[in-house]
Amino acid sequence: MILDRVNYPQDLKSLSYDELKTLASEMRELIIKKVNTTGGHMGPNLGVVEATIAMHYVFNTPADKIVYDVSHQCYPHKILTGRKEGFTNPDKYLTYTGYTAPEESAYDLFKVGHTSTSVSLATGVAKARDLKGENYNVIALIGDGSLTGGEALEGLDNAATLGSNIIIVVNDNEMSIAENHGGIYDNLKLLRDSNGSAEPNFFKTLGFEYHYVENGNSIEDLIETFKSVKDTNHPVVVHIRTLKGCGLSVAENNKEAFHWIMPGTLDQTDNSSVFYGESYESITKDFISKKVEEKSPVCVVVAGTPGVFGYDKSYRENLGKHYTDVGIAEEHAVAYSSAMAKSGAKPILCLMSSFVQRTYDQMSQDLCLNNSPVTMLIYWGGLSDADATHLCSFDMPLISNIPNMVYLAPTNKEEYLAMLEYSYNQNEHPVAIRVPSCGLISAGIADQTDYSKINKFSMTENGEKIAIIGLGNFYNLAKEVKEEIKSKLGINSTLINPKFISGIDTEMLEGLKANHNLVITLEDGMLDGGFGEKITRYYGNSNMRVLNFGGTKEFTDRVPLSELYEKYHLTKEQIADDAKKCLNDIFAVC
Amino acid sequence: MILDRVNYPQDLKSLSYDELKTLASEMRELIIKKVNTTGGHMGPNLGVVEATIAMHYVFNTPADKIVYDVSHQCYPHKILTGRKEGFTNPDKYLTYTGYTAPEESAYDLFKVGHTSTSVSLATGVAKARDLKGENYNVIALIGDGSLTGGEALEGLDNAATLGSNIIIVVNDNEMSIAENHGGIYDNLKLLRDSNGSAEPNFFKTLGFEYHYVENGNSIEDLIETFKSVKDTNHPVVVHIRTLKGCGLSVAENNKEAFHWIMPGTLDQTDNSSVFYGESYESITKDFISKKVEEKSPVCVVVAGTPGVFGYDKSYRENLGKHYTDVGIAEEHAVAYSSAMAKSGAKPILCLMSSFVQRTYDQMSQDLCLNNSPVTMLIYWGGLSDADATHLCSFDMPLISNIPNMVYLAPTNKEEYLAMLEYSYNQNEHPVAIRVPSCGLISAGIADQTDYSKINKFSMTENGEKIAIIGLGNFYNLAKEVKEEIKSKLGINSTLINPKFISGIDTEMLEGLKANHNLVITLEDGMLDGGFGEKITRYYGNSNMRVLNFGGTKEFTDRVPLSELYEKYHLTKEQIADDAKKCLNDIFAVC
Repeated sequence: MILDRVNYPQDLKSLSYDELKTLASEMRELIIKKVNTTGGHMGPNLGVVEATIAMHYVFNTPADKIVYDVSHQCYPHKILTGRKEGFTNPDKYLTYTGYTAPEESAYDLFKVGHTSTSVSLATGVAKARDLKGENYNVIALIGDGSLTGGEALEGLDNAATLGSNIIIVVNDNEMSIAENHGGIYDNLKLLRDSNGSAEPNFFKTLGFEYHYVENGNSIEDLIETFKSVKDTNHPVVVHIRTLKGCGLSVAENNKEAFHWIMPGTLDQTDNSSVFYGESYESITKDFISKKVEEKSPVCVVVAGTPGVFGYDKSYRENLGKHYTDVGIAEEHAVAYSSAMAKSGAKPILCLMSSFVQRTYDQMSQDLCLNNSPVTMLIYWGGLSDADATHLCSFDMPLISNIPNMVYLAPTNKEEYLAMLEYSYNQNEHPVAIRVPSCGLISAGIADQTDYSKINKFSMTENGEKIAIIGLGNFYNLAKEVKEEIKSKLGINSTLINPKFISGIDTEMLEGLKANHNLVITLEDGMLDGGFGEKITRYYGNSNMRVLNFGGTKEFTDRVPLSELYEKYHLTKEQIADDAKKCLNDIFAVC
Repeated sequence: MILDRVNYPQDLKSLSYDELKTLASEMRELIIKKVNTTGGHMGPNLGVVEATIAMHYVFNTPADKIVYDVSHQCYPHKILTGRKEGFTNPDKYLTYTGYTAPEESAYDLFKVGHTSTSVSLATGVAKARDLKGENYNVIALIGDGSLTGGEALEGLDNAATLGSNIIIVVNDNEMSIAENHGGIYDNLKLLRDSNGSAEPNFFKTLGFEYHYVENGNSIEDLIETFKSVKDTNHPVVVHIRTLKGCGLSVAENNKEAFHWIMPGTLDQTDNSSVFYGESYESITKDFISKKVEEKSPVCVVVAGTPGVFGYDKSYRENLGKHYTDVGIAEEHAVAYSSAMAKSGAKPILCLMSSFVQRTYDQMSQDLCLNNSPVTMLIYWGGLSDADATHLCSFDMPLISNIPNMVYLAPTNKEEYLAMLEYSYNQNEHPVAIRVPSCGLISAGIADQTDYSKINKFSMTENGEKIAIIGLGNFYNLAKEVKEEIKSKLGINSTLINPKFISGIDTEMLEGLKANHNLVITLEDGMLDGGFGEKITRYYGNSNMRVLNFGGTKEFTDRVPLSELYEKYHLTKEQIADDAKKCLNDIFAVC
């Protein structure tokens, strides 16, 4: 194998084009096998094998710097930069992250998982080079799907004025995660269709020198073009047309499904393992379909990740005008939804917890300051074993501290549906709902709560001494804690389902003072700035003890959930134990 | 006067071009007089008088909808939409806000003060119209300076694909607040220089039909063009060239200084009233100049608002390569600075509190996850009597709850300088400093604190029973509260200057338990998610009482500061009184 002779980029320099092509095949085979075993980003990485080889062949990394965007395309890069064992040796499959990671390699500049960042980051690298009087190439790789993000567009606008070396490689595989949406894609098509010669040209309008490579999976063509722009003294865009999933026909033909795959996907002979049961995604879709049938002006809004919410291609097509994918453009998604709601339509904006943080000012100014009755659905919120770039533990502090926002945490299917109906029908506030990420639970009976009574908690079991407030995903943990305390301490605790994240029920909290000594709060997210602290602040001026349980302010990286729970004292045993110590202390004082 | 006959847009329809021109002069005169009396945005409003008249002449507002961006250009619009008394009658000068405000008028669609929003919002309005089967024109007005914001670019990309009526009026006065920066401005210049005919054309690349009006202060030309695009069935851009400050020569010739003026600016015969004394701005500039002299790779980064930080034109020019104005592009500013710091340069990123919220994901992902040693200076943070769109009370919850971020609150000049040096010289963390907004105070002796000892509070006076923790701007209030408590309750309180916003000194807090019953926290910002709650959470499991003082989670709108303080119990008398009640309660219990 050629790959046996290639450990670092310098090993490429002596290879012939034929050998480089063979190397590409070998790498592709490794990626397919590894990703099918562990799960991961299949299509984007297969498409960029040749470009990665060509970049490392032409440029002198790590002296020359390549900045990856979103890192979905970094597997070939990892193979060529000292980490091929992560692909050749199944025992090491999980050794390296799926994203660029400076702690792994000097060839990785930044830890990146959210998209649209590479151009901005590369511009900063180039500026530092110029300030220090150094001399090297700075290359940013960005996918076509990432171009619509505000940060990418801001970055391109500024990069164009850098006045020195920067090379932006636009990897155009004609896809975002799903299909592309946005005016810029018509221009990319025009450029592809004209072999790069058409006017108008988006990149040229900003001031970039522009190059087009029609066959972005041809190592020769790429090497030739990269050589021609190497050591440029001004900003350059190299637009390369690649094939997402290249070399794996099922991925080439199912680009969306093979953007990211589950382990073993290639081994399935049918779709029997796919889950078609009831889920929060399915009941949301049913809710929306019903509104469409009723001829309501409903509009589902997503920002480039429809699959996360279960909006498959046929569902999207059926929605027709009732569906907008704005592309990767969360800021616009919020402002757009706000204006729609203010104008009498009924937007349902769906965002992942990790990506809602890409739009704060718009939530504050465009949405909440204007008190627009948008329904926001926040998915996947909670502590997780995710990569540090995709944590979902910050949405509660972020969203719930914006004035006017009503942020709700259902604990089961019926509550979720009742909240969805409430939000959809009201015209008073922006409402966000944290869709449970702990699996669908049904209470079996409809929830009749009037959610227009803002910040009204629900006391589900009336006890004494200890009150346990279990928010959203952690309401079931609260129930377990109650049982644990009952069995260990013989105390019949009060159990509360707060339902509201963004405010507190002062009347209920005040009432607890009569026969409770300790309030326990449980939240599935970072404690700092979150829900529990609001409770604690309320009781600051009283002799009520409060214990807040949740996550610490930190970036965790692929830490197993059980380990995180143990660390944060989030097991029922630890919580009961902490409660016991606290009670002992109270009685010692009194 | 023509204006006597004009109260609402329909009153324009019967006027001749000559009468419209006279009306423009009358309106201009009113704006100059009013703005010079109250202060406000002068240049932008003078530039857009004719365009406002022409829009209201051609379109049928409020059935047709005009969405304003940043609202700096809404004064002429207010005059024509039932609010002219706010300009004719000095007693009513302060009746209306300087921004669009739906509560004032059906002609105002959104409350807007942060920029780059109009295209996104207008797209949402148009989408709602289409969903509801309605039929009207949607017009977005956006200034050239606002085009570089990610939200505007995301919005344009999506608006271009709307497939129905939307008219985007690009008001090109060749200026942002200061000069423009970014590749897009070269394209605007090319378009202006070619009377709109040049290729490449930024707007056409996205798919817009494009119209150019060379004389954007000609009512006839504007009316003619607006008539030609009225009722379009597809997305259109009308690029109009206007003169910032038009009709007031001093404003035409000093565009930056007359973007926004203080009351009475036109009446000054010289600059003698300008303050040239020492300020946080001046000592920051001195610090930077010294670093430049030392040949350090320092780089000041701003996002379109250099004047706020005292970076006047000559200072900026002197900085040369050590200065980057990225344009209104806060997201890029953060990522760019992060990459620069990671690459060995020394960025000092300056942002206003109200605008730092335009970049959260970049602070989290590009900056803090990568632990890049950027120095961020946050200006104007604190409760204020500002318009609801420009509040500065949210930066502490926003910034301080991001992992790895060190957020510092100096209380005087020497601490500020020591923190600046610390931040500049270290390579461990992103550091943000909340530049005091309460005026420069000097301690007279250099601060020798080692700020690398993260979260180490300073106990400045050692007392008993009550500990007062006064953060940043409110440290002086804490000193006053201590005196008040001493005189009213005879208690010698402990006084603490925490210096760190983003973490707590658990050792010191633990130590307070020995001889304190009550901890008081004071912070100049919203309490929710802020500093005080971290202290309260720490003490949740103890019998220490904690009172948190700060702002409530709400959008306040031009409320006098004294009124806000009273409402939030932020006077020394109220705080001492609350402390007394709390102590009485403790003794009653024990």
